[in-house]
Formats: sequence, structure tokens, C-alpha cells
Amino acid sequence: MPWSIIGERCAVSPLAVALGDPAGIGPEIVAKAWLHRKERGLLTFFAIGDARSVSAVWDGPVRRISSPADAPAVFDEALPLLQVEDAGIIAPGQPDMAGARCSLDALEMAAGLARSGAAGALVTGPVSKAQLYAIGFTHPGQTEFVAERCGVSASNVAMMLAGPSLRTVPVTTHVPLAEVAALLSIDLIVAKANATARGLQRDFGIAAPRLAVAGFNPHAGEQGALGREEIEIVIPALELLRESGMDVIGPLAADTMFHPRARMRYDAALCLYHDQALIPLKTLHFDEGVNMTLGLPIVRTSPDHGTAFEIAGKNCADPGAMIAAIELAGRCAWHRSQA
Amino acid sequence: MPWSIIGERCAVSPLAVALGDPAGIGPEIVAKAWLHRKERGLLTFFAIGDARSVSAVWDGPVRRISSPADAPAVFDEALPLLQVEDAGIIAPGQPDMAGARCSLDALEMAAGLARSGAAGALVTGPVSKAQLYAIGFTHPGQTEFVAERCGVSASNVAMMLAGPSLRTVPVTTHVPLAEVAALLSIDLIVAKANATARGLQRDFGIAAPRLAVAGFNPHAGEQGALGREEIEIVIPALELLRESGMDVIGPLAADTMFHPRARMRYDAALCLYHDQALIPLKTLHFDEGVNMTLGLPIVRTSPDHGTAFEIAGKNCADPGAMIAAIELAGRCAWHRSQA
Repeated sequence: MPWSIIGERCAVSPLAVALGDPAGIGPEIVAKAWLHRKERGLLTFFAIGDARSVSAVWDGPVRRISSPADAPAVFDEALPLLQVEDAGIIAPGQPDMAGARCSLDALEMAAGLARSGAAGALVTGPVSKAQLYAIGFTHPGQTEFVAERCGVSASNVAMMLAGPSLRTVPVTTHVPLAEVAALLSIDLIVAKANATARGLQRDFGIAAPRLAVAGFNPHAGEQGALGREEIEIVIPALELLRESGMDVIGPLAADTMFHPRARMRYDAALCLYHDQALIPLKTLHFDEGVNMTLGLPIVRTSPDHGTAFEIAGKNCADPGAMIAAIELAGRCAWHRSQA
Repeated sequence: MPWSIIGERCAVSPLAVALGDPAGIGPEIVAKAWLHRKERGLLTFFAIGDARSVSAVWDGPVRRISSPADAPAVFDEALPLLQVEDAGIIAPGQPDMAGARCSLDALEMAAGLARSGAAGALVTGPVSKAQLYAIGFTHPGQTEFVAERCGVSASNVAMMLAGPSLRTVPVTTHVPLAEVAALLSIDLIVAKANATARGLQRDFGIAAPRLAVAGFNPHAGEQGALGREEIEIVIPALELLRESGMDVIGPLAADTMFHPRARMRYDAALCLYHDQALIPLKTLHFDEGVNMTLGLPIVRTSPDHGTAFEIAGKNCADPGAMIAAIELAGRCAWHRSQA
């Protein structure tokens, strides 16, 4: 029996998909994801945003709903959509502040519905950080905004990049590479490892998660000859994690831990900086990478790409990552419903 | 017509393959490569080392030769081998100083034969740096030793990692990651780019090489928001390279430059630190990665793995990377013979 049928039987609430910036590719890829709902076995989802941003780029059926509970009756026939305030003039590829406000309204509504349980999970479409900052948004990104709305400190959430054959979690994210060494600490690695392990248990149904932790330096430092971060930070963190009962290996040489045989040894790889996590993930799974926030009371996923304003409205955006994000959100929501 | 036949017709001299440490997997994988000589279309090659290190791990035919010129007559029937001084007691998996001396003798002889033209290229098996240091070897690795023997400054050679669908060149190599930012300079990037471009022309027959240069920071620094190395070092280097007529793109976000479509845009990727170059290469091509030294008067390749003492003598070593190294050495020698 396909897992999606299991999901429906377990009555996972409809998944909320915030459309992201109305001038980006979000509306198009959400609509295209709906077209693939049957072949990919997607659980019922509904869009949140301005319906005009979808109809501007897609001539398929959209039906407005007034609550998530209306979505299942609509989903077979049309893309269910919960309307937020109008986004102003809809012009694909031309972001403006009204569109940014619309994307923020949609995000806020979607997060609230997921938080209340009315929605089974939160999937967020791509937003423009530059436009959001222009309207006074003070969070580094959607992740931190959602964490705050959920009452969780940003240090206790972890960003996971998930593809079909690899999951990576960067311990540090959007900071200059030269500053990473100073930001690394035993506590930080332990916190991210714990968030990751809990996420694998709760959202992926992996009872005893196996983690691998990358080294920071070439060859994981070669016993200190090529750097001391492994000796001073990574190894002590691993010792604490093992004492707490975690199944964790490392520090592994980062270049030899992502080939097919190596990936079979762990359920997620903890990486110490952005590109160490993102290079292998996007090299292998560029069109299907999902960004997931672990450590929240809700399931939150997102396609791992941006607004792509330059191709918006041209009907050439690849919905693969959005489909993967909706699919993974459904799986995770189902796993949580089993707990 | 297969390229190997072209190669034979052009009379590329036999390739010299130094066996590396006699206690490592070098002898086994060279012997196994010989077994694959026909199906892989390998040009004639001969081993250099202690014949007993091969016979200890392989019961196939080995025939001693007294000069590279004898190799073609032998190659169909047996692995041709040029003997160096005895390596002492042969014990697979148990390296010692006599073995290290043997590996150094073999390297020196092979480099000399390639330098004189008696051998068409130099392929080096894996050595133990720890053992070499113990006998007074003062170079960081085989590459620097060979460069010195060829009279080339180490700053004018570049290490290329080559796999079937990707070639990467690390601008800095075996240094702590936290020191990389201070080591990067416009001059260094320009020198490595020039060595790379010349290597692609001379050794790969690519008349107008296309290079891609990675950024240092996440998202290539996002116009300085996530670090300034791109603005201060990489972009000025790219401008100089373009002024000199080079076809070069960058700085590219390192995480989105290695997926299949992105790789079609360049012939080699210049990366700024070890793992940035090695993670994508080994993630994609773990068993067939070749380490090649560009900028030398000779062709030099090497399988991109170590001595693997722990599995030596167990007949389970994968010869894939050694076969790839011999194959690539032959191709490059052939390209040079056409110049």
C-alpha cells in the first residue's frame, strides 16, 4: 500500500503551502506540483497567497477555500487556495513591496495554521529577502521567523538539506567562511546533533539515528597536522554525544564521506559550514533538494532554491524541489501522527 | 578507431608506473590494472619497484625488463617490471623504512625515465608519507619531489583531480582551513588558473579551455554581505585572467556549480581550498579519481587514494583509480605527442 494512502487513512491535516513572493516562481511551481499530485502520491495540500499570482502564470483550476478543512473536497478537482490580502499589481519577475507584504502575510497565516494543527505541515515557497528587509522584516530568513512564531530559540533548530540519498545539516550557515572557526563550539555541535537526532526520530521515523560528523580541515586535520579544530572542538563534542548514547561517527574527512558507500553508514551528516553541507547535497540532488527545519513543534519544509525572478512567468520553472518539499512534509507529518 | 590504437601508432613511449610503498596496495592494483589492459585499451606500461612486492600479492606473470624499450615486447604476455634495489622483507600491510626507500628509488627512477623521454609518462603508486619522512624525505609529497626533479617551482604547478565528468584544481591544498583566507591572493589564483589552462591545452587537447572559479564564502559572498574575499581577491584575479584572453566564469557559488548541468559550462573548476575541490570530485567519482600534476615538462598522474595498508595483501583492493590514472596518463602523453 503506498505510503500516501497510509497518510490519508491516518488523517494528516491538509498541508499548508505558502506561495512565497508572488512575482517569483513560487505560484507556478505550486500549481505544477498540484498537477503531479496523483503520480507522486502527494497528500492533500492547499496554497496560501494571492490567487491572482497563480492565475497570472497558470491556466489550470484554482478554487478559493475559507479554511483548511475545505481542502480535501476540492483537491481532486482544483488547487485549493486560501486568499490573503491582494498583492497589489501582479507582474511575474518584477518584485515589489506589496508582493513582499503578501508573501509575509501568507507565511504568517500558514505558520499559524500549522501551529494550531489545522494544517498538517508548513511548506514555504521562495521569498525575496531583499524585498522583505525593505518592508521591515528583521529576521535573517523564513526559518528564524517561523522558529520565533513557534516559540523556539534559533539555536535549538537545525536546517537540514534532504535529498533522496543524502541528508546534511550545516552547523553554521550564512556567515563568512573565515569566521566559521571562531563560531564553532562543543555546545553548538552538541545542540545541532541533538536537534538532528530528534528530527530523524520524530519526522523520519528512524528509531536509532546514525549521525556522521565532518571534520573541519583537510583530511579531518590529520591528528592536528592540518589544523586543531577536530582535536579541540569536534572530538570532545563527539565524546559528549556518545556518552549520551548517540550513534555517531567522526570527525570524518569531508571529501570521502559522501560517496555512495560512505553514505550508507549514516542517516544524516553534520557539516561544519554552509558549503560543506551544500556542495555534496546540490551536486547529487540539485533539482530535488528540500530544506527542512528540525526542532520545531511543526513540520516545516521548503524547496532549496530561490525566487528565480528571471524566469518567473515563463512557464519553465522546474517544480521538482517543490514537489519533493510537499512530499517530504507529508511523510514527516505522517510520522508525527504515528508517535 | 579507439584512441589507444591512435596512441600506439603515434608511438607514445611506454608509461612508467612506480609501484609506491611495497607494503601498500600499489603492487596489487598495478598488477590488476595490467589484467584490464585490453578491455580498457591501456597503452603499454611497465612497473618500477621490487618484483617480490608484486609476486607476494599476485600470482600472475611478471617479467623483468632492463629498459623501457623492452616493455612493448613483453606487455601482451606479462607485466613488465624494472627492478629497483630490494625492498627488504616484503610484508603486505607492514610498512617499514626499507620499503620507503624502495618506493623512493622507484619514484626517482620513474621520474628520470619520464624526464628523459624513455617513458611516455609518470604514474605514481601510493606512498607512505610518514615512512618517507622517517628516512629523511623533505618534500611535502611526491608532487613537490617530482616538480623539483623537473626543475619547476612548486608555485607553477597545479594539482588537478580528474574524474569522468569533473575536473577540479584546488588553489590551496593541505593547510588548515582557517589559514586559507590569508593564503589566497590575486597572484596565486592567476598562477593556478594559467597552469590549469595550459594543462588543459597541452594534456587534454582543449584548444580554448573554459575555467570556472569558485567563490570562497557561502553564495560566493553575496556582494560582500557574507565575506569580502570575492570582492578583494577573486574578482580582481578574474579580471586579470579575462584581460589575458582566458575564458573564465566566476566567482560561482560553490554549492551550485557541480551539478550535471552546471558542469557542462566549464572544462575545469578552480577551487579555493582542499575540500571545496575534493568533496564534489570524490562524491561523484570516488573509485576513479585521478590526481594529476599540471605545469610539469612530463605527464604525471596518480590514483587519488592512499596506501590502504589495512587491506594490503588481501586481494580486495579496487584497481579502478590506478586504471584511470594509467589511462589518463596515456591520453595526455598522446595529446602531447600531437603538439
